Amino acid sequence: MSEIGADPMSKDFRRYGAIEGGGTKFVVLTGSDPDHIDRLEQIETTTPQKTLQRCIDFLVEEHRRSALAAVGIGMFGPVDLRKGSSTYGYVTTTPKLLWQFTDIVGPLQQALGIPIGWENDVNAAVLGEARYGAGRSCDPLVYLTVGTGVGGGVYVGGRVLHGLLHPEMGHVLMPSVPGDDFEGACPFHGRCLEGLVSGPAIEARCRRPASMVPMDDPAWGIVAEYLGAALMDISLILSPERIVLGGGVIADGWLLPKIREVLVRRLQSYLAHALLGERVDEYVVSSALGGRAGVIGALAVAREAAEAEG
Amino acid sequence: MSEIGADPMSKDFRRYGAIEGGGTKFVVLTGSDPDHIDRLEQIETTTPQKTLQRCIDFLVEEHRRSALAAVGIGMFGPVDLRKGSSTYGYVTTTPKLLWQFTDIVGPLQQALGIPIGWENDVNAAVLGEARYGAGRSCDPLVYLTVGTGVGGGVYVGGRVLHGLLHPEMGHVLMPSVPGDDFEGACPFHGRCLEGLVSGPAIEARCRRPASMVPMDDPAWGIVAEYLGAALMDISLILSPERIVLGGGVIADGWLLPKIREVLVRRLQSYLAHALLGERVDEYVVSSALGGRAGVIGALAVAREAAEAEG
Repeated sequence: MSEIGADPMSKDFRRYGAIEGGGTKFVVLTGSDPDHIDRLEQIETTTPQKTLQRCIDFLVEEHRRSALAAVGIGMFGPVDLRKGSSTYGYVTTTPKLLWQFTDIVGPLQQALGIPIGWENDVNAAVLGEARYGAGRSCDPLVYLTVGTGVGGGVYVGGRVLHGLLHPEMGHVLMPSVPGDDFEGACPFHGRCLEGLVSGPAIEARCRRPASMVPMDDPAWGIVAEYLGAALMDISLILSPERIVLGGGVIADGWLLPKIREVLVRRLQSYLAHALLGERVDEYVVSSALGGRAGVIGALAVAREAAEAEG
Repeated sequence: MSEIGADPMSKDFRRYGAIEGGGTKFVVLTGSDPDHIDRLEQIETTTPQKTLQRCIDFLVEEHRRSALAAVGIGMFGPVDLRKGSSTYGYVTTTPKLLWQFTDIVGPLQQALGIPIGWENDVNAAVLGEARYGAGRSCDPLVYLTVGTGVGGGVYVGGRVLHGLLHPEMGHVLMPSVPGDDFEGACPFHGRCLEGLVSGPAIEARCRRPASMVPMDDPAWGIVAEYLGAALMDISLILSPERIVLGGGVIADGWLLPKIREVLVRRLQSYLAHALLGERVDEYVVSSALGGRAGVIGALAVAREAAEAEG
């Protein structure tokens, strides 16, 4: 729908650093905006010490070459986003044991001495879509990723929503779908959204990896049924102007028409707006940043951090 | 929890008008804050012409006596809140046929010539709770009313959330509860939250008015089960700092401990915060404004409208 690119209103050509921290790889880059990337590197996720040090080395070298105004991080979670908390800037209770309670922001701050913006991966992604991607000029905006896990970020009032902790909308409860007796795969909630539509949930249901389940398998109709139900709940609670979908299960977007159909059918015209009716293809859209959503989001987080410092 | 009263930070002693527009009665008042109400009147809801004219007469007389800085309205819906829309300030597709597509803001604006703040009833209520009630210093804050209907308002980033339309969280979808085969009473969605826990839904389930169902009836356990599930979804999508419950079904709050118990049980400690665990009684609270939530909310809406004009 929208094209990727720099915010046309922006006259900001300062240089930023950005880190996308993922479970299998980190992506680190420097640049001003998605159209002006100076250097990008991928780093395998091993121990926190090794992985972080390589990010720091990259950014210190770049900062020496030409000053960075700030660094932004979009990190796999759970992370502590509460300013003033003793573990602010940490990855906290992650199942990746080596990374539990690891300080991420501290070492970067110490090495660089510039503002460090800090968000979890989906918060960074929603900011990236809002600034540079499929959600420009939409507020509120929701980004929902459906992959190994299911998670969502919210952009509202011109900023990323934190709240008490941060949204965890992958775990919303699901209505029953007639004929579906799959017990759900979430270790916490069984049949929550993530327990029904994540990659591992689809694999548990179909007894093969999600990527190997053919497009005409009835399982996809069920997955779309739950995703449409989740988008209904999100629409009713938050009234977003757009919902951007990303992640491996959404991939190239072939499931979107089915999801939109479920959303419109379930709403039963209760919300009187064309975007929830005939124009639903403008309401539920694919990520415009795709595989770059994480690191471009982190770049947007860097810019926010620089602006917050004035 | 919190006490009702004026914001202690406020030095604002300007006079405002406030209208709570309800299905059976309107409440109109003038005053500066909940502790300084000058005059209050209740008006039976009949035709829009008669009811509105009585509100206008009251406010014009008061405005002559001593100038009002603004008027705030909290109106039964659905209403059009979109500034710039041709029906902004109207009640729109209400089942109350006499009131369909009635301009509310226009006649008041014309008669008074001062700023008119305009919200639906739950949006006004959440603002009232945020400014004067049980939600002070909480942001995001959610207000959920459970009565003839179920509706909710959201306060986030220091203001009432509108979004594409406005939240309609009474209609979120519900998981099945083992042993409950009640088909739900919502004409749109059957087993959505409103279809399972509103006064009419409880009456349909129990074959007598909700107020006549004894406290030890198992139906209340089921109602609490669904309300706890809804609060879980709201918590996961919005991450509010507090949820305030009001409305006739909540009444004096005896159902709250059951609802809190369901919320904590269903979350399974997934959200690591004491407010979603041992301190849940500070997270899910009763309205501090009770029966006055609507009109005190409208007073808060008036103040916002005056401040928006500078």
